[in-house]
Amino acid sequence: MIKAGIIGATGYAGQELMRLLMQHPECEVEVISSRTYKNTNYDQVYGNFMGIASDKLVDEEIDEISKKVDVLFIALPHGIASNKISSKILENTKIIDLGADYRLNDLSVYEKWYGVSHGSPELIEEAVYGLCELKRQDVKKSNLIANPGCYTTCSILSLMPLVKNNLIDKGSIIVDAKSGVTGAGRALNLGTHYTECNESIKAYKIASHRHTPEIEQELSGVTDSSISISFTPHLIPMNRGILITAYASLNKKYTYEDIKEVYEECYKDEQFIRLLPEGVFPETKWVKGSNYCDINFQIDERTNRIIVLGAIDNLIKGAAGQAVQNMNIIFGLKESTGLEVIPAFPI
Amino acid sequence: MIKAGIIGATGYAGQELMRLLMQHPECEVEVISSRTYKNTNYDQVYGNFMGIASDKLVDEEIDEISKKVDVLFIALPHGIASNKISSKILENTKIIDLGADYRLNDLSVYEKWYGVSHGSPELIEEAVYGLCELKRQDVKKSNLIANPGCYTTCSILSLMPLVKNNLIDKGSIIVDAKSGVTGAGRALNLGTHYTECNESIKAYKIASHRHTPEIEQELSGVTDSSISISFTPHLIPMNRGILITAYASLNKKYTYEDIKEVYEECYKDEQFIRLLPEGVFPETKWVKGSNYCDINFQIDERTNRIIVLGAIDNLIKGAAGQAVQNMNIIFGLKESTGLEVIPAFPI
Amino acid sequence: MIKAGIIGATGYAGQELMRLLMQHPECEVEVISSRTYKNTNYDQVYGNFMGIASDKLVDEEIDEISKKVDVLFIALPHGIASNKISSKILENTKIIDLGADYRLNDLSVYEKWYGVSHGSPELIEEAVYGLCELKRQDVKKSNLIANPGCYTTCSILSLMPLVKNNLIDKGSIIVDAKSGVTGAGRALNLGTHYTECNESIKAYKIASHRHTPEIEQELSGVTDSSISISFTPHLIPMNRGILITAYASLNKKYTYEDIKEVYEECYKDEQFIRLLPEGVFPETKWVKGSNYCDINFQIDERTNRIIVLGAIDNLIKGAAGQAVQNMNIIFGLKESTGLEVIPAFPI
Amino acid sequence: MIKAGIIGATGYAGQELMRLLMQHPECEVEVISSRTYKNTNYDQVYGNFMGIASDKLVDEEIDEISKKVDVLFIALPHGIASNKISSKILENTKIIDLGADYRLNDLSVYEKWYGVSHGSPELIEEAVYGLCELKRQDVKKSNLIANPGCYTTCSILSLMPLVKNNLIDKGSIIVDAKSGVTGAGRALNLGTHYTECNESIKAYKIASHRHTPEIEQELSGVTDSSISISFTPHLIPMNRGILITAYASLNKKYTYEDIKEVYEECYKDEQFIRLLPEGVFPETKWVKGSNYCDINFQIDERTNRIIVLGAIDNLIKGAAGQAVQNMNIIFGLKESTGLEVIPAFPI
Repeated sequence: MIKAGIIGATGYAGQELMRLLMQHPECEVEVISSRTYKNTNYDQVYGNFMGIASDKLVDEEIDEISKKVDVLFIALPHGIASNKISSKILENTKIIDLGADYRLNDLSVYEKWYGVSHGSPELIEEAVYGLCELKRQDVKKSNLIANPGCYTTCSILSLMPLVKNNLIDKGSIIVDAKSGVTGAGRALNLGTHYTECNESIKAYKIASHRHTPEIEQELSGVTDSSISISFTPHLIPMNRGILITAYASLNKKYTYEDIKEVYEECYKDEQFIRLLPEGVFPETKWVKGSNYCDINFQIDERTNRIIVLGAIDNLIKGAAGQAVQNMNIIFGLKESTGLEVIPAFPI
Repeated sequence: MIKAGIIGATGYAGQELMRLLMQHPECEVEVISSRTYKNTNYDQVYGNFMGIASDKLVDEEIDEISKKVDVLFIALPHGIASNKISSKILENTKIIDLGADYRLNDLSVYEKWYGVSHGSPELIEEAVYGLCELKRQDVKKSNLIANPGCYTTCSILSLMPLVKNNLIDKGSIIVDAKSGVTGAGRALNLGTHYTECNESIKAYKIASHRHTPEIEQELSGVTDSSISISFTPHLIPMNRGILITAYASLNKKYTYEDIKEVYEECYKDEQFIRLLPEGVFPETKWVKGSNYCDINFQIDERTNRIIVLGAIDNLIKGAAGQAVQNMNIIFGLKESTGLEVIPAFPI
Repeated sequence: MIKAGIIGATGYAGQELMRLLMQHPECEVEVISSRTYKNTNYDQVYGNFMGIASDKLVDEEIDEISKKVDVLFIALPHGIASNKISSKILENTKIIDLGADYRLNDLSVYEKWYGVSHGSPELIEEAVYGLCELKRQDVKKSNLIANPGCYTTCSILSLMPLVKNNLIDKGSIIVDAKSGVTGAGRALNLGTHYTECNESIKAYKIASHRHTPEIEQELSGVTDSSISISFTPHLIPMNRGILITAYASLNKKYTYEDIKEVYEECYKDEQFIRLLPEGVFPETKWVKGSNYCDINFQIDERTNRIIVLGAIDNLIKGAAGQAVQNMNIIFGLKESTGLEVIPAFPI
Repeated sequence: MIKAGIIGATGYAGQELMRLLMQHPECEVEVISSRTYKNTNYDQVYGNFMGIASDKLVDEEIDEISKKVDVLFIALPHGIASNKISSKILENTKIIDLGADYRLNDLSVYEKWYGVSHGSPELIEEAVYGLCELKRQDVKKSNLIANPGCYTTCSILSLMPLVKNNLIDKGSIIVDAKSGVTGAGRALNLGTHYTECNESIKAYKIASHRHTPEIEQELSGVTDSSISISFTPHLIPMNRGILITAYASLNKKYTYEDIKEVYEECYKDEQFIRLLPEGVFPETKWVKGSNYCDINFQIDERTNRIIVLGAIDNLIKGAAGQAVQNMNIIFGLKESTGLEVIPAFPI
């Protein structure tokens, strides 16, 4: 059994991780920690765990915790993990960081977009960007996984085949993204007060969301040129789910079949990527509660653009599920262990 | 492996059953049928099953199907199953009927509340009312299980200890029930059109809902007298979940602890019943996606009433989950097999 | 033109009042105040007022403000108004208090349920409980109106004819109430964080909600005996609306028509009370955005109970609308002035 | 008083129109008609009108009706109005058609996108596209107004200043649109069944929605070249509201102020267009229940794109409100008569 610890177990991503790990057949949760709720029983923080996990949350003593576990998941706001993780800790345990601190290869890009200085720049190079479908070979060998952002995962998986195969004008990419409110976490905020976001939609962090450089880095990584995109996230009055609608100009005329073939070639062995049949498009409801990413596209012949749609459960494939998938890879388990759940509906 | 069939696999309860059975370690779904969608692939009807279940739905030929399976789940509107099931079919397979046809012992009560004549009254006596926590000994021996209604399950489990132990005035029971919209099924109806039930609440079938006699029958069954209740269901703008708020006059002054003890005694061995700590009350969100029934109560000292609250996931403990629990009992499996899932949140 | 001021203009009730008063043909808003947002333009606090009200919010200097206005609306949490209002202020202006401080006639009941001491007990006797349909003669003559609570308004209007005409067992009243989330206000709270209350239902303050003594006081007031009720509020995942489902035992057998006549007699001249046709029951959607209270009932013949349903828009008839109605009464305007709006749907 | 009739008074747009017209100080609704509900009282079809409008709905005898009214609003699915309207009818009354039949100038474009043949092509030329802010001079003189589509209104108003002033690459326009579910009407459909669209988001009619040619026609009309756009609508789990997020490449480097000036110049006299302050972006909640269109934009300097956001209430500025605005123009009333309502919040 893999012994796991969770730092930041009381945020939504931490909680989803707790749920997945407790149900994972090869893993047991050894330590859960939370600064805010230390010394509280877990089921007092999350009533769904009533009678299932009444373990006490401990303080965030990462050094201590790292000695007790084979893998340590970190689910903290950006800027904190990089100050807590060190080479020494990486000797004790493997780290899967659900935060943003190790996702960007370029320190200056990180510091520009996040507005903080990085606590352990020397570790950036060691870190592997854990988008499993693209990086599983590197993940296997790493002690420090930067688990991708939610918008990022969905955007990259949806666009990668087009970029890699040079089918689109790389300067033309626009990602219009929509997320449920869990993406904003459990911290109180007027914008996520029920009556303020229910029955309304808005865009936010227009042209300035921090997942932008992450998407650009990874898309650039599958081609030979540097890619800039426009990225606009929207807040949707629903609990879970991300849908991205991506637009790009095709380099020449292609048929649906031409491009379908390219996607199939890229993803033919991917259990968690579902390429939908022609004319059937992703809806977040079909992936809820699962690690799937559903993808399909439409060619707009009048403008010769391609419109790609991707959907994930933001807390699973966009956070905790992918973190478990990374753990499975690292420990040589079947990649889908503990993740083979059928999406629930209507839920 | 238990071979299972589902008649009516494309309603919401049928679909949830499909999901649970496909994930059940000791069961495999052999046949799925639907009149409306016969010859269609299952994942064309429910996109969550895309790439997971593309089996073709067959017509509702119950005779044929009953020969192929060890257990046959029936999820049809009332009045149909009783015309399809016969002694002969019960020789072929075990039946777990999620509909109402065999729930009421008294034929005249059935015909009065449902307004139809019963197709196989001779089988009523054979049928066992499959509320697992109350009837598991009978379930074990039966070939024909009447799986309880959703409101019923939650109401009976919440009130039973009070009635059985004679703590309340049996003429004083009022159940004010609230259900999510999946309770109304997938059939189109103005009342469940999104913009007609979103952002509103209403009561319906006031003093006339068909789950009333079912609750009365089972509560009467644990005591020596005939019980009549007032039952009012409400439609809540959410997908899943039932909350019942039940009121009754206490027979004398009791403390919280007095009554807590009675509940604990009744349910101490029940894995799926969670008696919440004092002052913590059921919320449907904490049981979503699971087979749990959460219960707690408050004594209103000023009026000497008890207010009992119970919450379930209507499609699981209120339908498909309990059906699986019944299957587990019948086949001698651990009762929680395939049902030990932690409720998901926020979902 | 009546000059009005609003203390606490940035809570939801204050904001709804602002909207109603700005659209009122005989009134103009002279001063708006807010402790939290003083010196901020109103449309920066509420974007719906963009370009419509960019007035600056001033501090809550009630003495100063009271000199400038003909009527002063106070929309503050309980316990504050009673410390701000004095006889001197009542010489300057008329007060309509949307809070709870002057609603209960009995000081000890107030202090017991609210757990604070009252700041101006000498004014309690002067205050008139402003449930317009019951008290309009008293309202006319008063300088200090205690505007009723939201649950209270709906409960009293729904039950009053039964109590007044002695049709029910006065010890048998149970009110099961359901409210949208605006009832909890704009202050941040985990319980009203979007992802915590969306897609779920819960009861809260069971047998202890502060609107209980208010309902009891007013129902007792229309009969000769002291009435105790059981009251359970529930939080519904929707923005607006209150539905109450009230249960009581009938004193003898009555037909629907018998009781309908009693309601019609009570409310025949009431513009804002809509007695629905037999078999049609209140739904909160039909009153949204309006000052209406929709009422109907069903007799449960099997138990000889009556089940009364009432629906209001909690921010209008349950708060700001009724406050305006009170203002109209005080100033001798047509009672419906500024309130004759058709409910909007679907909204 | 203007005498108005409504053909198709029982759809959502027809109902909203009914509400606006009944509250309009210079208009009275003389006839309401509905094929489905003929001979039914209006308040039996829409409970919000209970006690307010119990008029009987008549059959759709447009000839008869046209003789009785000064203006006739038609709110029918596309393809019907063009078969009902004739020159003769236009001699009797003015027509404001909320449907699509007369919106497109080019018959072949209409027939291609709508897949039906037009019933009165000879009237197309007479019809004026009633986007008030652009066409009020023409509206004044016309007997036949084609009231714009909901997505269209919001898209054109948001983009027009950029196109007209030649600030963007006209081949680069992408409109990613989001609508509440009222946009789909009251007709039953699996896609708008509560539990099928609640808690989910999807795109639909990708690159094929019929509002596309309408947007293209009107944007082309303010410049010298033919414009093609990519348009993708999404269904949002909320009742009302449209948000459009439009992307375009700027022709050169501009500052926020440069472009703000252009918008201000275009809309400085427009009461219903609110240009939000820098950094404040449209949210559908701020326009609900009103005729406003809120607009703002952000320059994405890294890609030199502009991202324009626009929000309207789809049933008001996107349908019934604009229809009333057109009526006001035609009859020489103040354009905002009956429309000067403050948006309601939270509702």
